Amino acid sequence: MTRLLSADEITALVTETLIRCRTSRENAQAVARALLGAELAGQAGHGLRRMPSYCAQALSGKVDGMAAARSRETRPAALSVDAAHGFAYPALELALAWLPAAARRNGIAMAGIHRSHHCGVAGLVVEQLAEDGLVGLLFANTPGAMAPWGGRHALFGTDPIAFAAPLDGADPVVVDISLSKVARGKIMAASQQGRDIPEGWALDANGNPTTDAKEALKGTMVPMGDAKGTALAIMVELLCAGLTGANYGYEASSFFDGEGAAPGTGQLVIAIDPTAFGDGALDRFAVLAGAIDGMDGARLPGRRRQALKARLLAEGVPCDDALLREIEALGR
Amino acid sequence: MTRLLSADEITALVTETLIRCRTSRENAQAVARALLGAELAGQAGHGLRRMPSYCAQALSGKVDGMAAARSRETRPAALSVDAAHGFAYPALELALAWLPAAARRNGIAMAGIHRSHHCGVAGLVVEQLAEDGLVGLLFANTPGAMAPWGGRHALFGTDPIAFAAPLDGADPVVVDISLSKVARGKIMAASQQGRDIPEGWALDANGNPTTDAKEALKGTMVPMGDAKGTALAIMVELLCAGLTGANYGYEASSFFDGEGAAPGTGQLVIAIDPTAFGDGALDRFAVLAGAIDGMDGARLPGRRRQALKARLLAEGVPCDDALLREIEALGR
Repeated sequence: MTRLLSADEITALVTETLIRCRTSRENAQAVARALLGAELAGQAGHGLRRMPSYCAQALSGKVDGMAAARSRETRPAALSVDAAHGFAYPALELALAWLPAAARRNGIAMAGIHRSHHCGVAGLVVEQLAEDGLVGLLFANTPGAMAPWGGRHALFGTDPIAFAAPLDGADPVVVDISLSKVARGKIMAASQQGRDIPEGWALDANGNPTTDAKEALKGTMVPMGDAKGTALAIMVELLCAGLTGANYGYEASSFFDGEGAAPGTGQLVIAIDPTAFGDGALDRFAVLAGAIDGMDGARLPGRRRQALKARLLAEGVPCDDALLREIEALGR
Repeated sequence: MTRLLSADEITALVTETLIRCRTSRENAQAVARALLGAELAGQAGHGLRRMPSYCAQALSGKVDGMAAARSRETRPAALSVDAAHGFAYPALELALAWLPAAARRNGIAMAGIHRSHHCGVAGLVVEQLAEDGLVGLLFANTPGAMAPWGGRHALFGTDPIAFAAPLDGADPVVVDISLSKVARGKIMAASQQGRDIPEGWALDANGNPTTDAKEALKGTMVPMGDAKGTALAIMVELLCAGLTGANYGYEASSFFDGEGAAPGTGQLVIAIDPTAFGDGALDRFAVLAGAIDGMDGARLPGRRRQALKARLLAEGVPCDDALLREIEALGR
């Protein structure tokens, strides 16, 4: 049972619902832009499905819906952004507004966001930089889900890394990976449906492999690439939390329920001017993109998503009817 | 059969041998510092064992041992370094000399190196930035070894990513991973010894899994984390080659033999001032390092290597006798 919603209908639904849940119009509009982007990217797990938990957090005050994100240029190529325990999206928009000119002036620039929250689809943040003609990199952390290699307790989140590079006359190359082998949402879904999970996805609370989804949720996620994945998670945590003043994964409360203190996670966004070293980079990006696209069986990351977006904008976004009814009742 | 060599003996051996092989004293000394560093890090595959192939390349002119690496500040936070088809190490040293002040001034700075070669142990480059008090990131590419996910032909190298962060009063945290599941050297060793390799390391020339080391060398390496590893490889290739003007992995000749044109690979080194967003970052780095170190079964990356270095400096570095005799004969 799905309903087709237009982009404008999704925007209005998210905005008006959040406003009913102690969120300013300005902040609600930023969240709406991000959740619509996620739906158009086929990333429903970062889209409307977040609304019940977002609203619960805004209503309980765990997320401050009225927060005003503020930024401060601390160096010529560094912007410190305080998300003020509000939603991450207004803070990310401040970063994305400042980065292009700073990167063009300096060659490279960074924005570090603290007291932040769920960053949504990481690839969409850097894709916007690429649409502005820049190379973008994003590191973000999420509440504790992965242990150091050999350890039993979650210190790191599933910690996405995203990258985008512009292509002349074509959609950007977008890389977006999280550092767990599979998304935690897949284990949550299996647990809710009473299903087992494949071996290799997760460890139980004693650090042993498990196929029991409920035990997995008490334990930790297996990193992608095993020890190499946790090595990258250390890098991401130090960059987006240690450097910016945000909470590490294991210090952060859940992105999903309305209980307790704010998660206070962080993001580091880096923008690079592709002409910083000379004029040839855009042509050279196109050379590698062409080599990948031209190979049997291979595909350029981001492409499938961009085709989907065009189709959903034309035809409407299929939304789960029960979820829409749940959202429509929020804050009433 | 090993001999114990002191740091000074290794430096002299590398320097004098390279000078006999059409390399300037200055360049030979830079190579010696890097190979000694690799030996002290227990990374013999990036140490003295490279000398026969380095010398063959210098003698044939594939590497220009007389090259003078040059750098140019193209933006306040961007340095373009031309390794001039010489060894990578003199170019990396130019980058490491410029980056600390530029990162402190701007918050973040980058050096892009083109017409370069084998960067050695990637972790050592960023560790030096961390010893100067900076956060360091390195992306480097290597000759083609991995295919895009689903493809059959190698486009990307095994492409290391390295990261280091300083800790007050302790050795830095150093992360250093290559993007193949295992090092290509392990497959080369198995091939030389006529051994099979475990399933999951490599694909044959048709893109099928193989345990035959010789078939594996004709095919491609399996990326760490499967499709996520090749996604990261696209990012690394675009950053360290597309952006800098270097060759992509599939355009680069071998780092190992003296045949053909120069590899012309690239490196991108980024340095970040940990105080760019405020004064707390060093303390916060120590918090995460302590949480990892304090967990049963886990260890902080880089630690084992730093303990080894202290022991090897005190006791001498065990070097293979046959290799030493081979090096002593080079260029005579």
